[in-house]
Amino acid sequence: MTLRDLIERKRDGGRIAADEWRAFTRDLSAGTLPDYQVSALLMAIYFRGLDDDETVALMDAMLHSGRTLDLRHLTRGRIDKHSTGGVGDKASLVLAPLVAACGVAVPMMSGRGLGHTGGTLDKLESIPGFNTRLTLEQASAQIERLGCALIGQTGEIAPADKRLYSMRDATATVESIPLIAASIMSKKLAESLTGLVLDVKIGAGAFLPRTADSIRLAETMIALGKRYDCPVVALLTDMDAPLGVACGNANEVEESIETLRDGGPPDLRELTLRLSAEMLVLGKAAATLEDARVTLERALASGAALEKFREIVIAQGGDPRVCDDPKAVLAQPAISEPFVAARDGYVERIDARGIGRAVTAMGGGRMTMEDVVDPSVGIRIVARPGAHVKAGDPIAIIEARDAACAAIARRALEAAVHLGDIAPVQRLLVSHRVTVAGVERFN
Amino acid sequence: MTLRDLIERKRDGGRIAADEWRAFTRDLSAGTLPDYQVSALLMAIYFRGLDDDETVALMDAMLHSGRTLDLRHLTRGRIDKHSTGGVGDKASLVLAPLVAACGVAVPMMSGRGLGHTGGTLDKLESIPGFNTRLTLEQASAQIERLGCALIGQTGEIAPADKRLYSMRDATATVESIPLIAASIMSKKLAESLTGLVLDVKIGAGAFLPRTADSIRLAETMIALGKRYDCPVVALLTDMDAPLGVACGNANEVEESIETLRDGGPPDLRELTLRLSAEMLVLGKAAATLEDARVTLERALASGAALEKFREIVIAQGGDPRVCDDPKAVLAQPAISEPFVAARDGYVERIDARGIGRAVTAMGGGRMTMEDVVDPSVGIRIVARPGAHVKAGDPIAIIEARDAACAAIARRALEAAVHLGDIAPVQRLLVSHRVTVAGVERFN
Repeated sequence: MTLRDLIERKRDGGRIAADEWRAFTRDLSAGTLPDYQVSALLMAIYFRGLDDDETVALMDAMLHSGRTLDLRHLTRGRIDKHSTGGVGDKASLVLAPLVAACGVAVPMMSGRGLGHTGGTLDKLESIPGFNTRLTLEQASAQIERLGCALIGQTGEIAPADKRLYSMRDATATVESIPLIAASIMSKKLAESLTGLVLDVKIGAGAFLPRTADSIRLAETMIALGKRYDCPVVALLTDMDAPLGVACGNANEVEESIETLRDGGPPDLRELTLRLSAEMLVLGKAAATLEDARVTLERALASGAALEKFREIVIAQGGDPRVCDDPKAVLAQPAISEPFVAARDGYVERIDARGIGRAVTAMGGGRMTMEDVVDPSVGIRIVARPGAHVKAGDPIAIIEARDAACAAIARRALEAAVHLGDIAPVQRLLVSHRVTVAGVERFN
Repeated sequence: MTLRDLIERKRDGGRIAADEWRAFTRDLSAGTLPDYQVSALLMAIYFRGLDDDETVALMDAMLHSGRTLDLRHLTRGRIDKHSTGGVGDKASLVLAPLVAACGVAVPMMSGRGLGHTGGTLDKLESIPGFNTRLTLEQASAQIERLGCALIGQTGEIAPADKRLYSMRDATATVESIPLIAASIMSKKLAESLTGLVLDVKIGAGAFLPRTADSIRLAETMIALGKRYDCPVVALLTDMDAPLGVACGNANEVEESIETLRDGGPPDLRELTLRLSAEMLVLGKAAATLEDARVTLERALASGAALEKFREIVIAQGGDPRVCDDPKAVLAQPAISEPFVAARDGYVERIDARGIGRAVTAMGGGRMTMEDVVDPSVGIRIVARPGAHVKAGDPIAIIEARDAACAAIARRALEAAVHLGDIAPVQRLLVSHRVTVAGVERFN
C-alpha cells in the first residue's frame, strides 16, 4: 500500500486503517514521505474528514511517534488546559500556578504564537532568563517538586504531529476538526494527564468561528480522551473582543501578575476561575465546582498562587522580581500613546482578529515560525465593548517601538473599534459546557 | 497574495483570477513554488472544481508557459486526435498516417504509458531506430513535407502543465475534469491546430468510468476549443475490453501495420475510421462523414496509408522493413503460449484494466516514468467478448520474457476473463458523439 493509494482512498471517502496510520506516522517522523503527497492527503482529509476510529488511530500513532512526559508515579491529579487560541488570552499564565497551588499537578506544554493569536511561550519568554526549553527529565522533576512546569513541545514529543502541523499551516488545512483534535490530544496525552480542560474560543476572533464546529471539536476530543481514561471537559468561551486589557507579550505577563495578586481585569479573572475550577474537580482536589471556586479564590487572596508562580519563575531561570515589580523587569515600549474615541458613543465591537493581526504586524507575533518576537510592543484595550465613551476618551493604549509601529496599531484600531449609539448586547463569557454527559448551555 | 491564500480561497469554493493563474504557472515553471502547496491546491481543485473562466485562464497560462509548434503558415487543415487512454488502443498509429495520406496535416504529440494504459511513444519506439524526440523545428519541417510527425511533449511545450501533471499523478488528483481539460488543451493548442478529435473512453477500463463525466469532459474541452477557434468533436468509445487483439508494444505495432494493410481486427479498423472521418471533416478534406469514409477506405485499400507510415518511419530514423515484415524487425517474445478456456461457454467480459495492469507488470508498461519498457511482451486477446468457446480453446496468447513473466499474465487472465452461459449484450463501439451543437447518442 503506497501513500498515493491512501490519498486516493481518502479522496473517495474511504477509511484508512490503524496499521496504515502507524506506517504513515512512522515514515512521516523519519522524513521519508514526499511533502507533496502528505499535503494532498491533508487536503483530502479536510474535505472527507476522519471517522472516530481513524481519529483515534492517527492520534495514537502520533502520540507513539515520540517520547512521553511520564508522570504516572505522581499520586496527585495531573490536569492541563488547552485553548484553541485567542487574542489577549493569558489565562494559562494565571491558571497554571493557581491550580498547582491548590494541589493539582499542571504539566503545561504550550505553543508559540502564529498568525493573529499569541502564544504562552512567547509571553513567558518576555520574563528575562525564563527558560521554556526544559528536557522531559527536568520538567518531570520540577512537576514532582513544584506541581507545575511551563514548557514547549520538544522535538521528542509527538514528532509526527509537529511535522504535520507545520505543513497544515502552509497548506490551509488547519481547520479540520479531526486533525485538530488528534493533534491536540497526541500532545496532551503525552503528558500522562488524568484530565484535560479545553477552552474552545467562539466569536469573530476564534479560529473556528461557528459554534456548531466548536461543539463538534469538544465532542471529538471528549471521545478521544474517553478511550485513554482521560476525561475532558470543554468550555466554549467568548473571543469576539480580546480577553482582558493587554494584548502583546510583556504587557500580558504584567496583567497576569496583577491577576495573581487578586486583581486584574474581571473577564480574565472570571475565565481563569471557571477553567481552574474544572481542573480542580477533574484533579479530585475539589468535590464540586462551587467548592473549587472557594479554594481558588482563597489561593488568589492569600498570595499562594503568586508564590507558586514565583517558584516556577525561579526554577525555570527567570527573574523573580517580575512578581513584585513587573514594569521594572519587563521590556517597556518606547512609545505609549492613547487611541481616542472620535465621537461620543458606546463601544459596540472590538474585532479581536484585527487587534491580534496588528500586534503581530507591530513585531509582537509571528507570521512564520522563524520570526523573532519583540516583547515590548502591544495594544491595551481600556474601553471594552459595552463601555460608553466621550469624544477624546482613550479606547486603547498603543505600545510601540517607533512611530511606524504605532501607525500600524492606529490603522488597525480604526478598523477594529466600532462605536455606536446603542449599548450592545453583552456576550456571555462562557456560553456552553461540554462533558461526556452532553452539552450544557448557559444564558 | 500568497499561494497559501489561493489554496484557502479555492478550498472554500472561491475563484482564482486570470492574473493569479498566470503568476502561479510562471512560478510553477520557474520551480519556485513549494511542491506541498501546489499539491494541496490541486486537491482543493479536485473537490471544488474550476469554473469555465478559471479553466480557460489556467489553460491559457500553461499554454503560454512554453513554446509552440507554429504551423500557421500551412494552408492544410491541422488536426490531432487525443485519447483519454485505454488498453490495446493503437488507433493513433493507424490514424495519423491514414489521415495525413488524405491531405490533412497531423501534428501528433503523444505520451508514454503509465499505470494500466499504454502509450503511443512506447509503441513507436519498439520500431528499431524510431526517434520520437524531434525538436520543434524538425517536427515542423517534417509536417510541412510529409503532413505528419509522431513526437513526444518536449520540455519546451507547456512546461507548467508537465510539472503539474507529474505531481497530479503522485497525489491522486488526476481525475479532475477541469484539470484534465486544461492539461490536454494547453498541449494541443500548442500544436496550432485547426481542429481536434477527442476519443473519450468509457467502460470499466476507462480512466473516467462514468459516462456523465466523459460527456462533461468533452463539453469542457469543446468550450475551451471554442475560445481559441479550434473546433473539438468528441466520440465516446468503448473501453470495457481491450481494443483489437494485441496488448503490448511490438505486438500493437504489428497489428497497426496489418490494419494499415487494409486488414486488422474489425473493432480497431472501425474505431480508426470513425475518428479519422471526423478529422477529415474538421480538416476540410471532406464535406461529410460519409464522403470522408469513402476517401479513407480507399487510402487503406490502395496502400497510400501504409506508404505514408513508411515515409514517417524513414523520416524519424526507424527501420522501414517493419512495414513489410513486422515480425522480422520487431522484438519477439521468448515464450508464446495459449491461455485456454476452462469450460465451454461465452466470453462474457474481459476486464481491460486487469489486462493493462498485467502487461505493465510483465514489463511492457510503466509504474513510474523511470521504468524501461520491454517491447516484446504482451497479451493477445483472441476470443473477444461475445465469442463462444469450447473447453481448451485459446482465449488469449501470452507473450512473455520468461516463465515468471508468463505466470503474471496467466494469473491476470484468470481474474480478467469471465465465461458464462449466455451470450452477453454487445456493447456499442461508439456510443455518443459530442460537438458544439450538443450530444448525439447512438444505439
